[in-house]
Amino acid sequence: MKNYIKPDEWSIIEEGFDPHHHQISESIFSLGNGRMGQRANFEEAYSGQSLLGNYVAGVYYPDKTRVGWWKNGYPEYFAKVLNAANWTSIDVNIDGEQLDLAKCEVSSFRRELNMKQGYLKRNFRAKTATGKEVEVEAIRFCSMADDETAAIKYTVTPLNFSGNITLTPAIDGDVVNKDSNYDEKFWDEVSKANQPEGGYIVMRTKKTGFEVATGMQFTVLQNGKSVQIQAEAINKEKYVASKVTLQAQQGQSIGIIKYVANLSSQNHKPEELVDKLNATLNRVSQKGFDTMLAEQAAAWAKKWEHNDIIIEGDVSAQQAIRFNIFQLNQTYTGEDDRLNIGPKGFTGEKYGGSTYWDTEAYCVPFYLATADQNVTRNLLLYRYKQLGKAIENAALLGFKNGAALYPMVTMDGTECHNEWEITFEEIHRNGAIAYAIFNYVRYTADEAYLADYGLEVLLAIARFWSQRVNWSADKGKYVMLGVTGPNEYENNINNNWYTNTLATWCMGYALEVAEKVKDSSPEQYVALLARISFDEVTEIAKFRDIIEKMYYPYDDAQQVFLQQDGYLDKEQILVKDLPVADRPLNQKWSWDRILRSCYIKQADVLQGIYFFEDRFDTETIRRNFDFYEPRTVHESSLSPCVHAILAAKLGDEERAYEFYLRTARLDLDDYNNDTEDGCHITSMAGTWMSVVEGFGGMRVRDGKLSFHPFIPEKWTSFSFHMGFRGALLNVKVSRDGVQLKNLSDKTVSVVVYGKEQIVNANTELLIKA
Amino acid sequence: MKNYIKPDEWSIIEEGFDPHHHQISESIFSLGNGRMGQRANFEEAYSGQSLLGNYVAGVYYPDKTRVGWWKNGYPEYFAKVLNAANWTSIDVNIDGEQLDLAKCEVSSFRRELNMKQGYLKRNFRAKTATGKEVEVEAIRFCSMADDETAAIKYTVTPLNFSGNITLTPAIDGDVVNKDSNYDEKFWDEVSKANQPEGGYIVMRTKKTGFEVATGMQFTVLQNGKSVQIQAEAINKEKYVASKVTLQAQQGQSIGIIKYVANLSSQNHKPEELVDKLNATLNRVSQKGFDTMLAEQAAAWAKKWEHNDIIIEGDVSAQQAIRFNIFQLNQTYTGEDDRLNIGPKGFTGEKYGGSTYWDTEAYCVPFYLATADQNVTRNLLLYRYKQLGKAIENAALLGFKNGAALYPMVTMDGTECHNEWEITFEEIHRNGAIAYAIFNYVRYTADEAYLADYGLEVLLAIARFWSQRVNWSADKGKYVMLGVTGPNEYENNINNNWYTNTLATWCMGYALEVAEKVKDSSPEQYVALLARISFDEVTEIAKFRDIIEKMYYPYDDAQQVFLQQDGYLDKEQILVKDLPVADRPLNQKWSWDRILRSCYIKQADVLQGIYFFEDRFDTETIRRNFDFYEPRTVHESSLSPCVHAILAAKLGDEERAYEFYLRTARLDLDDYNNDTEDGCHITSMAGTWMSVVEGFGGMRVRDGKLSFHPFIPEKWTSFSFHMGFRGALLNVKVSRDGVQLKNLSDKTVSVVVYGKEQIVNANTELLIKA
Repeated sequence: MKNYIKPDEWSIIEEGFDPHHHQISESIFSLGNGRMGQRANFEEAYSGQSLLGNYVAGVYYPDKTRVGWWKNGYPEYFAKVLNAANWTSIDVNIDGEQLDLAKCEVSSFRRELNMKQGYLKRNFRAKTATGKEVEVEAIRFCSMADDETAAIKYTVTPLNFSGNITLTPAIDGDVVNKDSNYDEKFWDEVSKANQPEGGYIVMRTKKTGFEVATGMQFTVLQNGKSVQIQAEAINKEKYVASKVTLQAQQGQSIGIIKYVANLSSQNHKPEELVDKLNATLNRVSQKGFDTMLAEQAAAWAKKWEHNDIIIEGDVSAQQAIRFNIFQLNQTYTGEDDRLNIGPKGFTGEKYGGSTYWDTEAYCVPFYLATADQNVTRNLLLYRYKQLGKAIENAALLGFKNGAALYPMVTMDGTECHNEWEITFEEIHRNGAIAYAIFNYVRYTADEAYLADYGLEVLLAIARFWSQRVNWSADKGKYVMLGVTGPNEYENNINNNWYTNTLATWCMGYALEVAEKVKDSSPEQYVALLARISFDEVTEIAKFRDIIEKMYYPYDDAQQVFLQQDGYLDKEQILVKDLPVADRPLNQKWSWDRILRSCYIKQADVLQGIYFFEDRFDTETIRRNFDFYEPRTVHESSLSPCVHAILAAKLGDEERAYEFYLRTARLDLDDYNNDTEDGCHITSMAGTWMSVVEGFGGMRVRDGKLSFHPFIPEKWTSFSFHMGFRGALLNVKVSRDGVQLKNLSDKTVSVVVYGKEQIVNANTELLIKA
Repeated sequence: MKNYIKPDEWSIIEEGFDPHHHQISESIFSLGNGRMGQRANFEEAYSGQSLLGNYVAGVYYPDKTRVGWWKNGYPEYFAKVLNAANWTSIDVNIDGEQLDLAKCEVSSFRRELNMKQGYLKRNFRAKTATGKEVEVEAIRFCSMADDETAAIKYTVTPLNFSGNITLTPAIDGDVVNKDSNYDEKFWDEVSKANQPEGGYIVMRTKKTGFEVATGMQFTVLQNGKSVQIQAEAINKEKYVASKVTLQAQQGQSIGIIKYVANLSSQNHKPEELVDKLNATLNRVSQKGFDTMLAEQAAAWAKKWEHNDIIIEGDVSAQQAIRFNIFQLNQTYTGEDDRLNIGPKGFTGEKYGGSTYWDTEAYCVPFYLATADQNVTRNLLLYRYKQLGKAIENAALLGFKNGAALYPMVTMDGTECHNEWEITFEEIHRNGAIAYAIFNYVRYTADEAYLADYGLEVLLAIARFWSQRVNWSADKGKYVMLGVTGPNEYENNINNNWYTNTLATWCMGYALEVAEKVKDSSPEQYVALLARISFDEVTEIAKFRDIIEKMYYPYDDAQQVFLQQDGYLDKEQILVKDLPVADRPLNQKWSWDRILRSCYIKQADVLQGIYFFEDRFDTETIRRNFDFYEPRTVHESSLSPCVHAILAAKLGDEERAYEFYLRTARLDLDDYNNDTEDGCHITSMAGTWMSVVEGFGGMRVRDGKLSFHPFIPEKWTSFSFHMGFRGALLNVKVSRDGVQLKNLSDKTVSVVVYGKEQIVNANTELLIKA
């Protein structure tokens, strides 16, 4: 665990330069606007350890699968998030010496990720090997208001000399992925040009043929004012740059504003890319840096209005929760139903693929409450549009008749993952996709979605489950063999309670929705059934039979749901009794030892209880929580949030807060020693859930929001914003009670501590403690 | 399945050249002498599809592991069988045209692997692109009598022209492994030299530093007579050759005898390699080709005397069984306890490693009966010498106190494999190593081995099992979780009956041997216990407790041992009811589908019944056989033999013969479409077992050989040779009865059909049918 980020309510701040923290900071200080983003690589050259990363949403490369031992059914390719052309580079040369912080004496260094306004600012003083000292300020952002553009303002002030300073803004398309399976480069050059005070390059991905045009225009600054300087064009393979040499006077700044545009063939015709790129560059350079930055601040102000969480009395917690919300918003804006939420967002390339079940299980609740409902709708449509691929994917594994298995990891709907116990067996992901539909409709009441899209997905998923179970003559029940549950510290197990529960829920929900659609939209219903050849008689009967006769492992003695068959055969030593030296297990124990142990990576039975809380009385929840949590090592970043929410539900405020702490500063404090690879974007939604569903006790029941809040002891108050069916609410929890502000023109009825409260439009209400 | 090998009792013959069969034939016609060997690559150039392979026993390279997803505990390296310097090459150039069968019209072609005398002979007529026709004969062998040497006699006769023919015998060290993980070359050149009529090259393996000196001397022949010709030396990187140009007259042969020596630093000091190599080359070239070939024939005659199986009435079966015996003898001679039996022997590089549990479970019975007992003793010593590594290997997986887990695949004792479900969980291999000790002592009565070496290994293995089980409070029994049994179509299962059974047997046998050694060699016993810190009180008590309270899954309804917990939850459709199009499952079904099915790859419960046959009455064996065999797809080459033996035991002669057929010609008929990668060497021992233990009903009981033979309907008779405790027996089974010939000076007592028979030295006895 690191602890070098300065506390601040609105900013992430690093002071002093420590090369050991640099790659972590490159992740933490990442920028993004949903369309593109990049790690906080330095503009100037840096020869120290660094992971270069510039990403364009939705642009990927199918890298040939690499495995030790091939298993039948493995996909041939793994869709990698691509490191794309680097547009941040501005080389600085001082009288023939390259500015490189790895080779300088750095006397002051500060970087700030300003989350309120959405920019990254870096200031430092450095002395070169020959003793020339400069002060540098760099500000950059990816525009939220105009998402194909970005800008950098970079100034250098000589402190103890006057001399020639050369600035070389560049677009560099000659980049690699660190995770390339065969050390292959993924991009070919299509075209490039140097232009007056600028240049561009168009790159095309191999195989997938995405074209991305990346260009710059720049303005040279001397002493803060724009000046005209003759630039020298540089043009190498996959690289364009302009060399600008200035006579810099001691104490007077020189600098450059670099306007950037990044256009992808996903959104433009390839033949129009260059013209549109230039038009965009002209537009933003005419607009100017300050105007762009003001628009950026305004765009972020609008975001925060809907999704801020304010914590009083704990700056560190305040900073953390805002960081999580900020990164989620940088990663996904919900405007494009072809995009999804990569596990590292724009902060790294690791894990590849942009879509995991994290989206449906963890991110959907966040976006439902904090963004327009279309954002979540687009996430659902993304899966709807990939239904054909999910059916193909299931067919590859032997399923028939339109059964769909959504991939474990994907970009375009094709399965990418290649670990049999995950790819083929961690099939509960399919249930999360159905659950997200349920969750969306529960939250928004958008029932039209069901008739238009939802039911088709639900039936395909239900078909999968109905084929995936088999009748056990031995048990006289349906069973589900060979699965991996959310607890990935078990593989190829039989009758995972969570998966079995989810499977029958999916079938039941599909039937319920089918009834509803049949009733409300009979023509659509009939047309759908015909299109997917759904046999109403036999298929429904089969679903019902399975729902009725499904087997769920249960232990009578302890009255708990059993994670899987045979779980109680394991040696039951609790986590608290494990030697500290053995933790984390995933680094200290061989895989087989983990597998045969009773230790749980992340909520499994408890994930099911979280999803279907209303089915269980509090004592049942408590028994299961008390049984499973002491066996859980929380070695997934997705684990603590569910436990925080259930602990809160059970009234254990202290433990709820403990679980919250484990997720909130996961990346800021580099809790797992892996933030250098990128931030844990999807688990950030879990932090939000811990606060809103945990401490706030927020639920949606019978079409209403309900709250059952408490305040963590250390906090004075906390408040959160939520949209709900056209209304915008602010809920503030303090020692005084629960204050509800209705910031919209719509009256809402909410339930607080079990009692209904009407909050009229544009009014507030205090429910005293 | 291919069917191009001509039937012959003593030879493998291919007639006509079909490039599609070439790589298969390269495997089948491979040569070896236990010390070195190679695939049947052509001497002259061949630009068609070919897998070049020359191997030197025990020389390997630790190739960096390649996996898709790293699991904690994986070994960093995989020891690869190395393609070594190619000494077979003799380039042929006819008036400027290179002889290359891929570019010629081949009017006749014949190759013969003469198993009686141990050589490979090839004759062909080919016409070059310009119409020049030649006849070629090539004979080569790896000397069994002098195992660092080999020889090739290669003659070319111009049929329709006179002209210049250039022969270029070469030693080429610039070779690659097809299975190299990172396309790396594994050899560096140490030194080389052209010499008068010869040359040599010394190569060193990277990392492991093995040095191998490979040299040649040659004699040029014109019209069958040796002639002196000035050769032109060629010397390139990792390559030496001599170019010999002859004026060839139409109808008169020219040719070359290439004497080869191959010396490894395993057997010689590196600094002496070149001198010894040259001395060896001088020795064999002075001896001459014909004498070497005569010695070769004599060495093989001696082998066959001890291990031939003669089948009358079925040439195809006769050819097949001799092929299997021949290849086993080529692969392993048992003279060096640092060597073992690679799954492909000297016929290919696939799978890497030289040692699998195949050695103990399948090969030991063959070598026990057909070779001097020292051969098996060396196989046991190989493991004894690697005990330290096995203890290290277990420690990596968290085991303590001298517990040993022998590797799944190894060269030097270090685990190489990297598939968690196999590497970490297919631990039954450990039991096979104990069983081989038991089998060796049962067969040879060499009880001194137990005190000297066996007990130490047995206790380390028993310690492993005692730590690998855990107490299930739920069952009130010891259980063993997370294993893969011999049936690799199940992974990470709980309480595999075979593994549980083997584990307690190992502990019991270790205790039995401990008692015996304590009694017979008390000083050795005490010294051993001290050396390995064995606590006689607590450890023995623990073993006993586990033996007493072990859990074995069993189905009361069907009265069968259950392969594992939950096996009866599977859908029970028999193999005969599977669509033909679904077979073989490992090519047609995704891995998860195979795993959750009831289908069995190879004997699992039945492997246990085979090992411990005496524990079960015939009805128990029959019930289990009748339950499991119909669920078995036999998709391992190791499967049919155990089933053949058990079917024979149960009196089902027809099915015993059917199972035998599946293994006997596995490679000759390319049954599994994979012989091009190399032959299935270790499963060849299973074919021998099918005949001797299956049809012959051979067992060792109470220190005596016993037989319960029958003749397959298609055969007239079959007979086999066996050594047993200093005696040599020939057992011939015909319609007349069982004829026992004692070919030794020692009287033996054998049991035939349950009745004891004394066979006096050098006499024979007929037990009438």
